Amino acid sequence: MSEYKKLTEQDLAEVAKIVPRERILWADEINEEYSHDELTATPSYPDLVVRATSAEEISGVLKYANKEHIAVTPRGAGTGLVGASVAVEHGIMIDTTLMNHFLELDEENLTLTLEPGVLLMEIYQYVEPKGLFYPPDPGEKTATIGGNISTNAGGMRAVKYGVTRDFVRGLEIVLADGTIMEVGGKVVKNSSGYDLKDMIIGSEGTLAFVTKAILKLLPLPQKAVSLLVPFPTLAQAIRTVPLIVKSKATPTAIEFMEREVIMDAENFLGQSFPDNQADAYLLLKFDGSNAEDIAKDYDAVAQLCLEQGAIDVLIADTDERADAIWKTRGSFLQAISGSTTMMDEVDVVVPRNKVNEFVEYVHALQDEMHVRIKSFGHAGDGNLHVYILRDDLDEEAWEKVLNDTMEKMYAKARTMDGKVSGEHGIGFAKKPYLKEDLDPAAVEIMRGIKKAFDPNNILNPRKVCFD
Amino acid sequence: MSEYKKLTEQDLAEVAKIVPRERILWADEINEEYSHDELTATPSYPDLVVRATSAEEISGVLKYANKEHIAVTPRGAGTGLVGASVAVEHGIMIDTTLMNHFLELDEENLTLTLEPGVLLMEIYQYVEPKGLFYPPDPGEKTATIGGNISTNAGGMRAVKYGVTRDFVRGLEIVLADGTIMEVGGKVVKNSSGYDLKDMIIGSEGTLAFVTKAILKLLPLPQKAVSLLVPFPTLAQAIRTVPLIVKSKATPTAIEFMEREVIMDAENFLGQSFPDNQADAYLLLKFDGSNAEDIAKDYDAVAQLCLEQGAIDVLIADTDERADAIWKTRGSFLQAISGSTTMMDEVDVVVPRNKVNEFVEYVHALQDEMHVRIKSFGHAGDGNLHVYILRDDLDEEAWEKVLNDTMEKMYAKARTMDGKVSGEHGIGFAKKPYLKEDLDPAAVEIMRGIKKAFDPNNILNPRKVCFD
Repeated sequence: MSEYKKLTEQDLAEVAKIVPRERILWADEINEEYSHDELTATPSYPDLVVRATSAEEISGVLKYANKEHIAVTPRGAGTGLVGASVAVEHGIMIDTTLMNHFLELDEENLTLTLEPGVLLMEIYQYVEPKGLFYPPDPGEKTATIGGNISTNAGGMRAVKYGVTRDFVRGLEIVLADGTIMEVGGKVVKNSSGYDLKDMIIGSEGTLAFVTKAILKLLPLPQKAVSLLVPFPTLAQAIRTVPLIVKSKATPTAIEFMEREVIMDAENFLGQSFPDNQADAYLLLKFDGSNAEDIAKDYDAVAQLCLEQGAIDVLIADTDERADAIWKTRGSFLQAISGSTTMMDEVDVVVPRNKVNEFVEYVHALQDEMHVRIKSFGHAGDGNLHVYILRDDLDEEAWEKVLNDTMEKMYAKARTMDGKVSGEHGIGFAKKPYLKEDLDPAAVEIMRGIKKAFDPNNILNPRKVCFD
Repeated sequence: MSEYKKLTEQDLAEVAKIVPRERILWADEINEEYSHDELTATPSYPDLVVRATSAEEISGVLKYANKEHIAVTPRGAGTGLVGASVAVEHGIMIDTTLMNHFLELDEENLTLTLEPGVLLMEIYQYVEPKGLFYPPDPGEKTATIGGNISTNAGGMRAVKYGVTRDFVRGLEIVLADGTIMEVGGKVVKNSSGYDLKDMIIGSEGTLAFVTKAILKLLPLPQKAVSLLVPFPTLAQAIRTVPLIVKSKATPTAIEFMEREVIMDAENFLGQSFPDNQADAYLLLKFDGSNAEDIAKDYDAVAQLCLEQGAIDVLIADTDERADAIWKTRGSFLQAISGSTTMMDEVDVVVPRNKVNEFVEYVHALQDEMHVRIKSFGHAGDGNLHVYILRDDLDEEAWEKVLNDTMEKMYAKARTMDGKVSGEHGIGFAKKPYLKEDLDPAAVEIMRGIKKAFDPNNILNPRKVCFD
């Protein structure tokens, strides 16, 4: 039984003193969407949803929840994959999607201040026409920036530019007791006490509620070129990646993909991929200030790929051609999902020169475990997305094969000094695997940190941290 | 009176069971150097110095200190400016300068694994001939990398590349209880639980002892060009900086300097600066893969500077010419120090478009407070180094004017959403100013984090965090 308070009409009345009743959802008003994320096996409803519009409202709600010992779940667009935005302890869900305003574009400091409910794709649409660039590029463009900050989302351009953490300069947060506070700021450097900002980033709403972010922008690269490189085998493709890194080229992105996943995507999109001659592909992107510079960079990489056995190097130097390829890449998650009845994912990250070994292990595991497994991922940064497909397995068989297969994959990643999650986070689903990975002393320290921020454990309980 | 144990011959004997006696310094064996850093007003000796050679030794010493409640101070090259490496509570000092080995250069992952006692200049010497680049560029090249990690050191190239934090992928740390543990790793992305690695970085030895680091490297830019731009007034020079940022140029560094500081440097170095026609200068650096690309970038900036009233733009495109200028810049701290009897510093960081307002405030403060103040700094990232000079003031007058002047400067920075330290850290000297800056809730959270890592408060007590 839950240690948290089950909300009553009385609580609803109290919350309605803080947030207008028309922005509160209660009982039957709570849409089914709020009970799960993109990949939840077990749905769970909050008792009440607040559609917040300000830090002050969130502060008021948290103060109440902290006093009454009510679990609070933060919610952006609900596009997560590990259950971080699912109300496993019910209570109050705070939906930030109405907090979707750009607050300030400061071109003298190259910062963008915005609310957490702004969607990732809206950021690109807002800054790029102004010649500015927000480099993090997670696959799910309809995620909110608040969600991206909560998971320290990565994406394809991490190879060259880094992840969400690298582009968050400051945050406004609300603590569990309702205190509104800023961490970091517009400043470029900061050595002023413990780094609370980076502790919040990636903590999946368990330490504080993010109500505002100051993002760092860069000048927009003027030109980008994509290379699609077919290889006879996946091993040859992936083995080429560490050589590209070692060659000191600086691609923006290096993705790998296999024929069968591409075919799923063709079915899903109803359009054909520009090439179908190979079992495996590398997809690379290069960006820079002009076409000649980029060509210098990618010519050497193209040559290297051919030396390593690539069948061809297809250059997509128009937006249309590149978009067709990247659209296929962008649809993989949905395409794989559409090819089966149910699935679960592994988001491990390993050192870049271990990707091939891991992928070969996964291939072998399909036969060993008698289950379909599909994978694709960020070869350039070692972050793999591996999907285990249920197909027509019954509940019991599925549970067993899923758990056993996952256990094996995480164990394999551990032997390579890999980590449980490269970018999707831990949430609810990956906690047991994280715990196996961590030194018991680290588990204790995480508990201590959680307690320092949220002594009553009301913020997103049962996620990330350990009871 | 200190709450910590004063060491006896008995403790010496116990420590000598962990570390050979010949690497322990005791009583008169402890050199005066160990009693201060580069800018300590009040020296303080440790009771005992251990010159450690491994994480295991440090683990053993910490275990003993934790049991006996002995204060432990980490020590690199002792080049800090805020007292973080001074044993204010005596006890044991652990000197890491013998742990100065490169452990692995992994060219497939572009990482360098090394011990904390390696000097910053040794890193450059090691990686650059291999075509690799460690971008952080703090002025003090004889600092250890351990010290740089402890303060999250920044430096001149932060404008384009970021600070130490951005180039640390993983750490081996020893906890207060002696547990040896890794945080982060070689992986490029990581969303696996709370970000302990970034919490350690910049914590100045108060949370854990760093015994190994995995640094991220980049390909070495093939070519660099420096521009020295004289301006009639400092205001004109500094006001040009936000315009450069806004123009979407990407300089590696933008420094500002004034005639009188340059003259101090000329005296200190015994050589003349390449230009002496102006009261104020901007010094910019651009790097890239070839001369033409860089020229495109700096031509636009040169034009912008001239439009803003620059007297000239001097281009240093040979190593010799550039070295002469940067050597002058690199000597400022020592040159200013040599021009007075004693000094103290302020290392505030403000948003980049507030630098001029802050520097004008400091100029006015000289007259108001009747004290000499010299400044220079990183105009491109808003991090200023301001030195208050004692000259011939007596103790009492100095204390008063120093405290009052600092108080005013930090208060001014606060009105601009600035921070107490951009890169030097908080240590012992800046704690009161940090506390004024922080929300009381943040102070409490810092205490909680300290407790989670170091429940007996033996690691570098009285630094950064609040009792």
